Order: sequence, then C-alpha cells, then structure tokens
Amino acid sequence: MPHIALNSGEPGIRGLLRFRPETGRPLSELAEVLLRGPGTLARGERELIAAYVSALNDCQYCSASHSACAAAQLPGGMAVVEQVCADAGNAPVSAKLRALLAIAAAVQQSGLNVSAQDVAEARSAGATDLEIHDTVLIAAALCMFNRYVDGLATLAPEDPALYAAGAQRLINEGYLPPSAEPVDEG
Amino acid sequence: MPHIALNSGEPGIRGLLRFRPETGRPLSELAEVLLRGPGTLARGERELIAAYVSALNDCQYCSASHSACAAAQLPGGMAVVEQVCADAGNAPVSAKLRALLAIAAAVQQSGLNVSAQDVAEARSAGATDLEIHDTVLIAAALCMFNRYVDGLATLAPEDPALYAAGAQRLINEGYLPPSAEPVDEG
Repeated sequence: MPHIALNSGEPGIRGLLRFRPETGRPLSELAEVLLRGPGTLARGERELIAAYVSALNDCQYCSASHSACAAAQLPGGMAVVEQVCADAGNAPVSAKLRALLAIAAAVQQSGLNVSAQDVAEARSAGATDLEIHDTVLIAAALCMFNRYVDGLATLAPEDPALYAAGAQRLINEGYLPPSAEPVDEG
Repeated sequence: MPHIALNSGEPGIRGLLRFRPETGRPLSELAEVLLRGPGTLARGERELIAAYVSALNDCQYCSASHSACAAAQLPGGMAVVEQVCADAGNAPVSAKLRALLAIAAAVQQSGLNVSAQDVAEARSAGATDLEIHDTVLIAAALCMFNRYVDGLATLAPEDPALYAAGAQRLINEGYLPPSAEPVDEG
C-alpha cells in the first residue's frame, strides 16, 4: 500500500512517473540516456550495473525490473545476473565490467568510498573515462530511484513474468513515456 | 583531483554537468523542478532538505552549496541551516518541516526506512501528499547528486564566499544551464 495516493494501479517507478509528470519527464530522460543512449558499454552491461546496485539496496521492484532487462540483453541471461548479484567479484563477466561493478558497489555505500585504486583498476582493465563516469552516475541514479520507489512504498509485484514482459517493452520502446499514454491502465 | 579528466576547472556538480551534457540536461531539469518549480514548500525549505541530506551524506560541495541557497532564502538564515544539520529534531522550524526532515533522513539511509508512522506524522502536521512526495524525491535525488559529485572526486572549494555567490546566481538564474554558455571558464 503506497504511502500516498498515486491514483493509478501502476507499480514501482511507473506509478510515480505518472503521479508527478513534471519530475517524471527528466527522470525518464535520465534513464534513457544512461541505460540506452549511445555509449560503449552494452545496454545489457548498463542494466546489469543498475540491477546490481538495486539488489544491494534491497529494492525489490527495481532489482527485478533491471535484472529482467539485463538478462534479456546479455549472452549469459539471468544466470549471470544472479551470479553478479550474489558475488560480483567472482562472476563470469569481463575484467573491465568486474572493475566497473566494484566502483558501482562503492558508490552504493557512498561516493566517498570510490578510491583512486578502484578507478586505476578499471582503467587498466580498459575502461574509458566516459565509462567510469557513466558507471558512477548509473550507480548514483539507482540509489535515487531505489529510494524513491521504496520511500513511497510503491507496489512491487512478485511474478517474474510481469518483469520479463516489462523488460521486453522497455527494450522495444525505451524509458521515455509514450506521447499519448492512456490515463489509467491499472 | 577528480578521478577522470573533466576538462574544466569547475567544481562539484558544475564540472560534471559540463563534461556530459547529455546527462547534464535532465539532471539540471530535475533540480530546477524539484527545488525551484511551482510548489507549496518554499524554495528555502526545499533547499534546506537538500542541504540536510547532503550533510548526512558528508558531501562537502553539495552541503555547502545547498546550505548557502537555503540560508539566502530562509528568514532564519545560516543559523537555522546549521541547527537543522546539527539536530533536526530540535531545530526552530515548523512542525511540518520538522516531520518532512525526518522523512528525508530516513530516505538518506534507505527508502525502506520510511515508516507509515513517519508519513502519518507529516500528514497530521499539515503536509500534503505532494509535499511528502517531493520531500522523498528531493532526499533521493540528493543521494544521487552527492554520490555523483564525490564518486568522481570533484573539486570542493572551501571558501564560503564562493558558495554564497553561487547561491545568488542560482537564486537569480536557476539550475538550468544558460543557452549560450562559454566553453571554458576554468
């Protein structure tokens, strides 16, 4: 039961973006640029960073949603997502991605926890400044989205099929709201 | 010394917004709507919530910047900002604002820490659903901005006069970047 009356049956971030479109628009644009915009990190890798941070924050809705998006876009599927969330340091991902996940985990605790050594390791594994920047901002942005979604006690369905279907919609249509969205699907 | 080459001498979030304008634009728009857009919380009150969360996150740049913005727009000036950051529960602010600051402090830890009781207390002190929503999102957004600024080790000047001057500029011009910004002031 959400803490405030959202006036739609939509779960998680979707109910919030609809409740307050003035903030929903820049939030959607931020997600679109970071997770799907032009970049050298694959979309599946960016969703994996988002899923990992959401799991560290115990945010059920965002964790399930971004895990489904990552699984659908990574060769390893959900198995690799689960391995990263359980033990990122030993997960079967590239050395570069492992180093970026370590930076993301530091950011989840505090920006002050990111060390020069963390950054040097990512760079020696081949990460560019822009990839390091985007990793820090993806992790920081999920620390916002997770707190927003849970701080207002939004609904988080349990059925994984709903998240898989949502992931397909996001992969096809992106994070920006459709221009002529129906008023209430709930 | 920032972790990545930002190619400008600008401190804190300003150097980051300039480094990556694709993400800078929605981030600036989010700050503008939340902290200065139409709303029933005074701009000084919203900046106070931002300053308080930034202090809880030990983010020197954001704390100094939002404290200066709050101080310049609140009747109590910097004294009330310092009292809130030191002991929000006993600071000389309205009961409603005190209840909203308690919600912000919970969000700073985790969205899951916001209790129905926290929300009920804010509501009984006169807070609307929209004010509760915006408080949660301001606190969550600062958890992002603080991690972004510190996670990349951006510069944080110490001179309070610089933050006071920056606050006057933000109060006059807002958070959106000027359309014809010079390429490098640094």
